[in-house]
Amino acid sequence: MAQRLDAREAGFAQAFAALLSAKREVSEDVDQAVRAIIDDVIARGDDALIDYTRRFDHLDLRPEDLRVRDEEIDAAEAQCSRETLDALALAKERIEIYHRAQRPQDSMSTDSLGVTLGWRWTALESVGLYVPGGRASYPSSVLMNAVPAKVAGVPRVVMVVPTPRGETNPLVLAAARLAGVDEIFRIGGAQAVAALAYGTASVAPVSKIVGPGNAYVAAAKRRVFGQVGIDMIAGPSEVLVLADAHANPDWVAADLLAQAEHDPVAQSILVTDSPALADAVEAAVRRQLETLPKAEIAGASWRDYGAIILVESLRDAIPLVDRLAPEHLEIETQDPEALAAKVRNAGSIFLGSHTPEAIGDYVGGPNHVLPTARSARFSSGLGVLDFMKRTSILKCDPGALRALGPAAIALGRSEGLEGHARSVAIRLNL
Amino acid sequence: MAQRLDAREAGFAQAFAALLSAKREVSEDVDQAVRAIIDDVIARGDDALIDYTRRFDHLDLRPEDLRVRDEEIDAAEAQCSRETLDALALAKERIEIYHRAQRPQDSMSTDSLGVTLGWRWTALESVGLYVPGGRASYPSSVLMNAVPAKVAGVPRVVMVVPTPRGETNPLVLAAARLAGVDEIFRIGGAQAVAALAYGTASVAPVSKIVGPGNAYVAAAKRRVFGQVGIDMIAGPSEVLVLADAHANPDWVAADLLAQAEHDPVAQSILVTDSPALADAVEAAVRRQLETLPKAEIAGASWRDYGAIILVESLRDAIPLVDRLAPEHLEIETQDPEALAAKVRNAGSIFLGSHTPEAIGDYVGGPNHVLPTARSARFSSGLGVLDFMKRTSILKCDPGALRALGPAAIALGRSEGLEGHARSVAIRLNL
Repeated sequence: MAQRLDAREAGFAQAFAALLSAKREVSEDVDQAVRAIIDDVIARGDDALIDYTRRFDHLDLRPEDLRVRDEEIDAAEAQCSRETLDALALAKERIEIYHRAQRPQDSMSTDSLGVTLGWRWTALESVGLYVPGGRASYPSSVLMNAVPAKVAGVPRVVMVVPTPRGETNPLVLAAARLAGVDEIFRIGGAQAVAALAYGTASVAPVSKIVGPGNAYVAAAKRRVFGQVGIDMIAGPSEVLVLADAHANPDWVAADLLAQAEHDPVAQSILVTDSPALADAVEAAVRRQLETLPKAEIAGASWRDYGAIILVESLRDAIPLVDRLAPEHLEIETQDPEALAAKVRNAGSIFLGSHTPEAIGDYVGGPNHVLPTARSARFSSGLGVLDFMKRTSILKCDPGALRALGPAAIALGRSEGLEGHARSVAIRLNL
Repeated sequence: MAQRLDAREAGFAQAFAALLSAKREVSEDVDQAVRAIIDDVIARGDDALIDYTRRFDHLDLRPEDLRVRDEEIDAAEAQCSRETLDALALAKERIEIYHRAQRPQDSMSTDSLGVTLGWRWTALESVGLYVPGGRASYPSSVLMNAVPAKVAGVPRVVMVVPTPRGETNPLVLAAARLAGVDEIFRIGGAQAVAALAYGTASVAPVSKIVGPGNAYVAAAKRRVFGQVGIDMIAGPSEVLVLADAHANPDWVAADLLAQAEHDPVAQSILVTDSPALADAVEAAVRRQLETLPKAEIAGASWRDYGAIILVESLRDAIPLVDRLAPEHLEIETQDPEALAAKVRNAGSIFLGSHTPEAIGDYVGGPNHVLPTARSARFSSGLGVLDFMKRTSILKCDPGALRALGPAAIALGRSEGLEGHARSVAIRLNL
C-alpha cells in the first residue's frame, strides 16, 4: 500500500523531501527521431504525413482523406448515446460560461502629462489542438481545450487526432463539433505537430499548438516552440486530499482512486490530522480496489506513489501543500474555505465533501487542464488568456514628449545607446 | 543599404516570405557545457559557483561575498549622477502605475444549481532576475523585470548579475534598490541560473527565472524549465515603422537606427506608401550613421536585415504587419489610431510622430520586454500576470452534486474511467 509519513516523527523532513523529488516521468529519448520527422514534413509536406500515417497508424490515406469530412462527423454523432451527448452539451455550456468570465479587459487612458497609454487584447489567429488516439482520447479534453479558444475569439481552431487502423472515437468528433472546432485532420504524432507548425498543402499552419500527447508529441512541441506557441508540457496527474476526522473515508478513498486510475505514475496523497481517518481510508482503498476495472493501474499508482501524511494539526498541512503544489487539492474538512484561503500553490481547489474532483474533470465549469508536477508554484491552468495576447499601446502628444524626453535621453546615454537618445532629441531640437 | 521591396511588383510575395524567414539568431551549441555546469552546481553548490566565477568572471569570491552587501549598493548609488537617478525614479514610477492597472481580478459566484465557482490569483513566492554583465547590463531592464514582480506581490525577488573582474554597473545596483529587489548575487552564466533553480547554501531557490542573457543563460533557462518557470527566450530585437508622406524622414531614420544600434542582428523595417519618403529616409539613415557612435553595429544591422517596403496603400500594409508581427510597431501617419485598430499581431504600438520607441524603452510606462522574432503572433510582453498564477475553485453543495453528478458519471464511463464515475456515485448512493 501507499507509504505513510508522520509529520510528528523524526526523519519527516527528509521523507517529505524524497516524496517531493520522486521522479514520476519516464523520459524517453525520442528527440532524434522527432527531429527527422519534423524535417521530413517540412520538406515533403502531405507526402510525409501520408507515409508516417501508413507506418505508425497502419492507415492508407490519399491527400483528400487527411481532413475528416462533415458526413463522418454526422455519422459519429449518430453512434453516440443521447445520454452522453446531453452530458457533453451540459459540460460545454458550463465550461463556456466559466471561461467567458475570464475574458480580459482592454485599458486606455491619458495621464496628466498628455501620454495616452494602455493595452489591447486580441485573439490568436489560429490554434492547433492535439488529441491523442486510443486510450487517452478524451472528449472532455476536446471541450476543455477548444471551448476557451473559441471564447477567446480564435477564428480558426484545427484539431488533429490519430486514427490507428481507421479507428475513431465518435465522441471525440462529436465533442469537436459541439466546441466549434473548424477543421479536423486524422493525423497524429510528431508529424501532426510539424504539419500544424509549418503547414502542408492540406494543413494551413497555426499560431499555437495545445493539447496533451505522448513522448513524441511532447518532444515535437518543444522543438517547434518559437515557430509557434505551445501550452505547457503536461506531466502525470496528481491529487492531494486534505481531510479531517469528519470526512467520509469511503468518499476520500474513491477520490484517491479516481486519480490513481489515470496512470501508474499518477499520484494520490492524503494529508490528515486524524490517525483514525488515515487507517479507515487505507482500508477503504484496499476494498474499493477489489472491484475497480482499472485496479491494476490504480493499485500500482497507489503502491508506488501514493502517500498518507499525518500532521499534528491541519494548519501544519498548509506549508506541505504549498511545497507539493498539487494539480488538484480537495479540502474535505469542517471549514474548507478557511484552509483554502491560506494555500498559495495549487492548480485547482475542490471545497467540501460534496465536490469530488471528477466533477471538475467534466461538468464543473473550470478547466481540467492544470499545472502538474509541482508547476502550480509558477503556472496556471488553461484559460482564455492562453488564446489571446496583449499589445501595449503608447502615444505622446508634443507636450508629453517634452515632459518625458529629457529622462529618456538621460537613460539612453547612461546605457551607451546614443541612437536612442537622438531619436528623442531630434524631435525636441535638443 | 537596406533592401527594397515593392508590393506592386512581381516577385514581391517571394521576397517578403524570404524576409520573414531570414534567420537572425546565431545558435551556438552550448547545451553540453551548460548541462555539466548545472549538474555541478546541484552537486557542489556554493563551491561550484565560486569555481565558475573564478574561471569565467576572473573573480575570487568567498561564500560570504556571493551576496552584494547593502553598503556596496549605497556606494554604487553615490557614484550615479543625480540626473540619471531622477530619470530612473521617473521611469520606475511610470512603470509601476502602468503595471498596477494590470493586476487581475479574482472571481467567485454561486450559480442557480448551487455550484460555487471562480478563481483566485496569487503571486509567485519568489522570482529570480537574470541581469547580464558588461555591454548589455541595462538598468532599465532591471526596472522592467523587477517592478511588475513587486506590483504582482512577489515577496522575494532575487537578482543575479555577473561582475567580471569585479566590475559592477552602479546604475544596475541603484535600479535594483529602487525596484525593491530583495537580494543581489554577483554570479552569472549557467551557474547562476542553476543556483536560482536548485538552490545552494547561499542562494535559496526561486519559483521562476526571468531576464535576458547570452546563449549559455538561454540554454540553462531551457534546461531548468519545469523545475522552475521561465519567461520567454528573447531573440534579436526589431522595429517596423509604418509611415505616410507626411512623416518626417529624419525622425523615422532616427527611430530605425535606434533599433539597429542594439545588435548587428536587430531588424529595422520601414513600410510606406510614399516612394518619396522611402528615398528621403534612406538618405537620412546614411547621413545619421556618419555621426552615430554605434555606427558599425547599426550600419551592419541596416545593411543585412533592414528593409524598406513600398505598398500601394497603407491598408495593404496591415496583412504584412500581421505576418511580421513586429516587437515594436511605430505608426507615423495622419490617422494612426485607425490603422492600429486593424493590426492583430504586434508586441507594442507607438502612435503618431511624437512617440519614438525609445520613450517606451525607458519612461513611457509599458514594459519593454516584448515578444521578438514573430512571436507576437502568440505571446505578450512581460507583465504582472507573468508573476502570478490562477487557482480555480469549485464547491458543490449536496443539491449541486445531485444536479451535476449524473452527467459526470456518464462522461466518466464514456471515457472508460469507472473510478471517476464511482467517486461521484458513492456520494449519491447510485
